[in-house]
Amino acid sequence: MTAPLSGAPLAGLVVLDMTHVLAGPFCATILSDLGARVIKVERPVTGDDTRAFPPFVQGESAYFAALNAGKQSIALDLRAGGDRAIFDRLLARADVLLENYRPGVMERLGYGYEVLHARHPRLIYGAVSGFGHTGPDSQKPAYDMVVQARGGVMSITGEEGGPPVRVGASIGDIVAGMYLAQGVLAALFARERTGEGAKVDIGMLDAQIAIQEHSLALTTATGHAPGPTGARHPTITPFSTFRAADGFFVIAAGNDALFAKLCEALALPLADDARFATNAARCENVHLLKRLIEAVTLGQTADHWVAVLEAAGVPTGRVQDMAQALRDPQVLARNMVLPVTPRAGGPAFSAAGNPIKMTGLPEPAARAAAPLLDGDRAAILAWLDAAGR
Amino acid sequence: MTAPLSGAPLAGLVVLDMTHVLAGPFCATILSDLGARVIKVERPVTGDDTRAFPPFVQGESAYFAALNAGKQSIALDLRAGGDRAIFDRLLARADVLLENYRPGVMERLGYGYEVLHARHPRLIYGAVSGFGHTGPDSQKPAYDMVVQARGGVMSITGEEGGPPVRVGASIGDIVAGMYLAQGVLAALFARERTGEGAKVDIGMLDAQIAIQEHSLALTTATGHAPGPTGARHPTITPFSTFRAADGFFVIAAGNDALFAKLCEALALPLADDARFATNAARCENVHLLKRLIEAVTLGQTADHWVAVLEAAGVPTGRVQDMAQALRDPQVLARNMVLPVTPRAGGPAFSAAGNPIKMTGLPEPAARAAAPLLDGDRAAILAWLDAAGR
Repeated sequence: MTAPLSGAPLAGLVVLDMTHVLAGPFCATILSDLGARVIKVERPVTGDDTRAFPPFVQGESAYFAALNAGKQSIALDLRAGGDRAIFDRLLARADVLLENYRPGVMERLGYGYEVLHARHPRLIYGAVSGFGHTGPDSQKPAYDMVVQARGGVMSITGEEGGPPVRVGASIGDIVAGMYLAQGVLAALFARERTGEGAKVDIGMLDAQIAIQEHSLALTTATGHAPGPTGARHPTITPFSTFRAADGFFVIAAGNDALFAKLCEALALPLADDARFATNAARCENVHLLKRLIEAVTLGQTADHWVAVLEAAGVPTGRVQDMAQALRDPQVLARNMVLPVTPRAGGPAFSAAGNPIKMTGLPEPAARAAAPLLDGDRAAILAWLDAAGR
Repeated sequence: MTAPLSGAPLAGLVVLDMTHVLAGPFCATILSDLGARVIKVERPVTGDDTRAFPPFVQGESAYFAALNAGKQSIALDLRAGGDRAIFDRLLARADVLLENYRPGVMERLGYGYEVLHARHPRLIYGAVSGFGHTGPDSQKPAYDMVVQARGGVMSITGEEGGPPVRVGASIGDIVAGMYLAQGVLAALFARERTGEGAKVDIGMLDAQIAIQEHSLALTTATGHAPGPTGARHPTITPFSTFRAADGFFVIAAGNDALFAKLCEALALPLADDARFATNAARCENVHLLKRLIEAVTLGQTADHWVAVLEAAGVPTGRVQDMAQALRDPQVLARNMVLPVTPRAGGPAFSAAGNPIKMTGLPEPAARAAAPLLDGDRAAILAWLDAAGR
């Protein structure tokens, strides 16, 4: 990036984040990484549920610390007059409000979108809930696993013929939080032109449907829903894990040219074999092909084969656990693992870096600590006072 | 949404999309759903690789159709003078250029960011690649499965003690495409204030690190990388699939109060049992608890238990395959499955709806058909001529 720096794109914006657990805080982290100031408005005494999520270091949750690094916290009881007055002052300064209550809760608190939009026409109201604010199930509770199950992704994840498996990352929450960030960013762009805010309503179940392009196309075109296929791609071969002497690696040979390169690199005389001449033929003989390839690859380490295939131009890579991934030279070169600067005497944590690299956006070498519950009340009140509101 | 409609947030914007396969086209779909006009710039003869991806209906790919509904297509050979002149005219009209070549390819074509930024200072340049534009592996090829493997998510997906499993949805591509959309949207917002475009550089491997909040916190706090845990949450219990008489359903009882409700609903006398009194105790006795619960749930259908638990306020849901998910009343109520309006005589397809519901953004009842390769050349040239450029 050699273009002139112009600062973070969301510099100067204020996000009031009333969300807890994962989808909403994940969205707030994205906005924070883009330069916005994020103020977590937490319930008194317990705060965000994830403050109680293991693992703990010096009594503080590493999970909370990683997800909330660099945010501020104020604890407000929105049923109490004094705290409501503070919240009202915060709303007058906010560009974005995020909430993840069930539909109707904000209305009962007197902070529904209609009321807020009338009072603060520029405010952008971002909501994420299990099923969205409309439809027959909008009032039902949901967690990540509920929408992973109901949205279909578990039915295509797992061993061939085996029971459904949960995606190890919490994509039920995370992709919903990402769609919320997109809606909020689009609303911020539109506000520059119209002067008016908007409401964004994300349902976690909707987001699950949106990310299953292949399963949806297959199901609607053929009438048959796909099942799990273990570690292989359902319609491209060879495109799966293979065993080496010391672990697993993947080969992703997505077309005939790559398959020819693969055969040459492994000294396998299969490139002219009719059983493997086309992707369709390779898919039909996928299990045989796997055995023929592993008969070769089991003889050497995964690192050996990754080096051989990379030299041959075949997409490949080790299957890494998180400890290996977090010391991967490419991951480190991209600043994707950041230390969280401890508060004085506080525990040290790590957090993910920002995957959005863009002109003008600084790449910090560390993240600021996550806030203690209500830890920024005095600073936030002083900031409100300084503006005279 | 009762606020006044003001139109789609990105109405009037033009996105030139040079990407192919999944990550880039997925980003373009998000921008299209927000109101932008997306022009696919495809290579002549073959076009986007996914035009050849199964399944096919009347010779057309359902995969391509679902992912590219509503976009336009022009085929350009960027090594040929006449087509380069057309591309230059398109660039002069574009707000956003998307590309997913390996770093350096656009420079060799004469369309690197530096050159384009000098010529079109307001243009936003969005790039997505396997490993991003910096770091030791930036030139290596990647597919979804390579970054799923290397980024760690396969190591936490699968049966307990079993081999790594691929996430059934192509999250290696999809979350990278979503981060690209976020960067582009942030750059569009910033451009309203600065008048200047930006380059956004997304690496698929980076995006995989960013979405694994739990695995990262656990690994960095304890020094031990987690493994796969089948269909249960690693640190919350009970939070997994359970067998009913006719299939699987999930119970997501994330705290003590929900566990008490669950025990009551199942008539299981465990709420006062010390082995299950806290989440930590339940995690220690997770397998025993599963057997005790399934001894009850195997006696009735999944629908029965979902109804019982919903009435009790316990988050639950069936494990649905994609056919079931696509006829789920909530999914349909949210317009998440849309018919693709066929071209005259062309095949009928379905596509996912837009999960971003927001004020002013229309909810169409159908999507326009995906383009034939080069199918919009005449219309695009006429549009360029009409503007006199």
